[in-house]
Amino acid sequence: MAPHAEPEALTDTSAIVLNDPVLSNGETHPIFTLDDVLPHRQKSTPPSRGVAAFSEADMFKSKGALKEPKAKRWDHRLSAESRARTASSLKGAMKFFKPDTISLCGGLPSSDYFPFEELSAKVPIVPKFSEDETAKSGKHFSSGKYDAREGKSFLDLSIALNYGQAMGPGALVRFLTEHTEIVHHPPYSDWDVCLTAGSTSALEIALRMFTEKGHYVLTEEYTFSTAIETVSPLGCKMLGINMDADGMLPDHLDNVLSTWDESARKAPKPFLVYTVPTGQNPTASTQSLERRRQLYTLAEKHDLFILEDEPYYFLQMDSYVSGQTHSVPTPFKPAAVADFLGNLVPSYLSIDTSGRVLRLDSFSKIIAPGSRCGWVTGSKQIVERFMRHNEVSAQNPAGFAMIHLYNLLEENWGHRGFLEWLMYIRAEYTRRRDIIINACEQHLPTEICSWVAPRAGMFHWVKVDVTKHPLYESRRKPDGSVDHPTLLKIEEAMFLAAAEQSVLIARGSWFRAQRGSDTELFFRTTFAAAPADKMVEAVRRVGTAIRKEFDLDATPGASQNGHAR
Amino acid sequence: MAPHAEPEALTDTSAIVLNDPVLSNGETHPIFTLDDVLPHRQKSTPPSRGVAAFSEADMFKSKGALKEPKAKRWDHRLSAESRARTASSLKGAMKFFKPDTISLCGGLPSSDYFPFEELSAKVPIVPKFSEDETAKSGKHFSSGKYDAREGKSFLDLSIALNYGQAMGPGALVRFLTEHTEIVHHPPYSDWDVCLTAGSTSALEIALRMFTEKGHYVLTEEYTFSTAIETVSPLGCKMLGINMDADGMLPDHLDNVLSTWDESARKAPKPFLVYTVPTGQNPTASTQSLERRRQLYTLAEKHDLFILEDEPYYFLQMDSYVSGQTHSVPTPFKPAAVADFLGNLVPSYLSIDTSGRVLRLDSFSKIIAPGSRCGWVTGSKQIVERFMRHNEVSAQNPAGFAMIHLYNLLEENWGHRGFLEWLMYIRAEYTRRRDIIINACEQHLPTEICSWVAPRAGMFHWVKVDVTKHPLYESRRKPDGSVDHPTLLKIEEAMFLAAAEQSVLIARGSWFRAQRGSDTELFFRTTFAAAPADKMVEAVRRVGTAIRKEFDLDATPGASQNGHAR
Repeated sequence: MAPHAEPEALTDTSAIVLNDPVLSNGETHPIFTLDDVLPHRQKSTPPSRGVAAFSEADMFKSKGALKEPKAKRWDHRLSAESRARTASSLKGAMKFFKPDTISLCGGLPSSDYFPFEELSAKVPIVPKFSEDETAKSGKHFSSGKYDAREGKSFLDLSIALNYGQAMGPGALVRFLTEHTEIVHHPPYSDWDVCLTAGSTSALEIALRMFTEKGHYVLTEEYTFSTAIETVSPLGCKMLGINMDADGMLPDHLDNVLSTWDESARKAPKPFLVYTVPTGQNPTASTQSLERRRQLYTLAEKHDLFILEDEPYYFLQMDSYVSGQTHSVPTPFKPAAVADFLGNLVPSYLSIDTSGRVLRLDSFSKIIAPGSRCGWVTGSKQIVERFMRHNEVSAQNPAGFAMIHLYNLLEENWGHRGFLEWLMYIRAEYTRRRDIIINACEQHLPTEICSWVAPRAGMFHWVKVDVTKHPLYESRRKPDGSVDHPTLLKIEEAMFLAAAEQSVLIARGSWFRAQRGSDTELFFRTTFAAAPADKMVEAVRRVGTAIRKEFDLDATPGASQNGHAR
Repeated sequence: MAPHAEPEALTDTSAIVLNDPVLSNGETHPIFTLDDVLPHRQKSTPPSRGVAAFSEADMFKSKGALKEPKAKRWDHRLSAESRARTASSLKGAMKFFKPDTISLCGGLPSSDYFPFEELSAKVPIVPKFSEDETAKSGKHFSSGKYDAREGKSFLDLSIALNYGQAMGPGALVRFLTEHTEIVHHPPYSDWDVCLTAGSTSALEIALRMFTEKGHYVLTEEYTFSTAIETVSPLGCKMLGINMDADGMLPDHLDNVLSTWDESARKAPKPFLVYTVPTGQNPTASTQSLERRRQLYTLAEKHDLFILEDEPYYFLQMDSYVSGQTHSVPTPFKPAAVADFLGNLVPSYLSIDTSGRVLRLDSFSKIIAPGSRCGWVTGSKQIVERFMRHNEVSAQNPAGFAMIHLYNLLEENWGHRGFLEWLMYIRAEYTRRRDIIINACEQHLPTEICSWVAPRAGMFHWVKVDVTKHPLYESRRKPDGSVDHPTLLKIEEAMFLAAAEQSVLIARGSWFRAQRGSDTELFFRTTFAAAPADKMVEAVRRVGTAIRKEFDLDATPGASQNGHAR
């Protein structure tokens, strides 16, 4: 990959403020905004308060959204497994349920026997988001067993803690439908949402929906290691597309697909793309709007289907300035939400006129991984197939997670508070990004280490000039390269040298889409986990480890700062 | 099936009180009981309080358990998919973690940004289990973000709400290890436990571990519809073994396997058994210890692997006595826990000397379905393969569920309170079973409806003499039977007649292991869901519907009770 290319300007803000959507018949309809939520709710039917009640995005969409054209059909892209899925017999019986019906059908345990009378949480009130402020002034939100039945809310323990329909409870489907309109306003009408047990679960389901044994999945040349480890046991292979700091390179993708030789490759032409467009894991590359448009055009040309995995979408940052650290004021003062939204690079979902994108969102990185809760958004056909699989695997996110998320998002924060929270953690991660990059500038040997400062996400990807390693010189082949085992040996030595200094870093080869094809040396660090001072100390130690391992002079940066030991 | 056979005595209690285990070297060791938990904990290492810390059952087992012989190896039974799974690169790096290590490796978000300062729940205190009592006297249990770090507990929000290892947090692995010893005392040493996102998820993972396309899975001739719907898209088929009220018939199983003709069947001899031994769904059949031993002997003979799906294991009931209803005293007075445990039919896990059983437990039916949390127990080799899949799908139960379960089970109830709770809901379900069976005796036309009163679980399975339906007579073939579409038509008419009376029942054909092979007419009701009065009213309506549909005289039972309309 070419991480040194000067990144394109992420966004030209003027280009991103989207105009009101133009329909195929030439009409426009106004974009749904935060201010439209309340009036829209006031004239719409609220979510059902029944146990295991059916819901779908269409119940909660704005009129404008429903006017868009329909998505294409994807029957030719679905796997035999996905096509073979049938609806649950037992859940199907619910269509005969009338208000006076008594069900002896589904084995839903009586809520009399849920040993939880009330659940509550102490959560931050907008905008007092920091841990200290929450400890002082956070508010308790509670849910009783029968709040919904008593008209106090749309989700209570008797609903959330019982079995439910595969898409999740109506109260959360409504919230996510509105969120999708506010943030993405998809350019087709028949999209739907389904809650997931997190994006790891959603990705596995999606892969099984679209792949057969022997298929290739297109992705960035370095990609999320867990995705590689999910694809491989299915008998499929990742096919890495070359990338720069703006992600996958359209020319290379086009070339791979245009010259695909099925018999030479012993595989059909690939059509499934797995991509993390924003703050990509591990490289932190973030696709500009221009890049997304180019790749989407190729998706139309080659009839691709895109899995848009976006856990870090809202962690898009202001540019890094060497030596500076963005501060996060306490209490946090959110800027205008419209500016925040206007400055996010538009998603694939928001440019997807054909419905060829399944977007994976997750609460893991923006609320907590332990929510094991996310959601997918895509065409109704695709989301329906997804649900058929979901209901025979994880079924639903845990009710304990859903009730707490409902109280936080719907009863406490609302959409505006949620977006302000996202602005807050984006600011926090920006500060952390600044701290780690400043530390790298100070403590890593820049004669062999290079990087592009991340503009999104949680990761920092560092290239190390492997040719400067003593072992490289001794094993250099006539063409200037070394064999792969040597490369891995150097990488391992670097990893162990860091571990010897009591720092864990992630090895670049773990993320190589086609494992075993590395020719360069990288490591990934995260600025999400360790406290700021530990992060700086860890980078200092990594600098020491690399200098030792590469036989460089002792660490000038560290000694200047009195850290040398 | 033969549901009318007089059930074998479920348990001869004297046979079930297991003697102290005898090891292969002739030594015995005492069974681990409730009273051993505290002394054992006092001399053992407690679970780690680290984020994403590794744990396993071996850390928490009694000395006696560790002395048992080892399980066999199952490499020859694992699917290509399962064999291909590799450990997570990122999680593997944790083995280099030392106390002073700073990790820049895994993308675990800082708990600073979890917008939950405290979670609490109002839960019943032993033995005031009923809803009314809990509302009055239930106790609030809370977890703070850093309770574990502060030494106050073994699980807090900073751990539970972050990513974790695939087996789940140590505090819960310890609880389940002890629970397994107290209840099952497996007769081999190297068993392990792994938390699951519920048994639906666990079953899907287990099926993918053991099946290839084209395989048959052995099961009861009527089985859980969701299991059928999970197996089918994998390209596999269920193969139903004949059954009576004690479950699968050993002779038929032996015959099927002994006479298996791979070329005629176009499939390898099956080896995977999916069974719900207790309160089977849908038939409520419960395998006696004798039956379990016979089937396990066949498993040894034919080298089978058993998926023991046991959501209803603790809902084993006293016998039904016509016209009587067992009462549940308030406050509930639990009898001796040892008697309760001694009267449970032993599990397959407890007679599994080879380690050829993977047991699936679930909190869904005994705590709440919304926990989306269960656990599997099996040989270390099998549980390790399970974890490799788990970590790229649901990963873990939701942290929100785990922290509330931890507070309930570990901080409030303890093992004794948990077992007393199980005695309580068993008593409640016994009362409900009595109510529905009494209602059936009163309101169903017994000239065509017959059943065996359930001895476990949540379901009541009713056979209807299909030959008495008007359509049957008109379509009877020379051999006395009718074609399958006619049978389904009669079943549908019965279902719709009940729905017309505003009652939903579950159609027998949904549960037919080999769909489309029904020759008899059944329906399933549940006594878990509706309140008692509604349940009786629903059965009355079903009686009316069946009488109408079968052209029988008007309902004598109902008119005697003044319900006739």
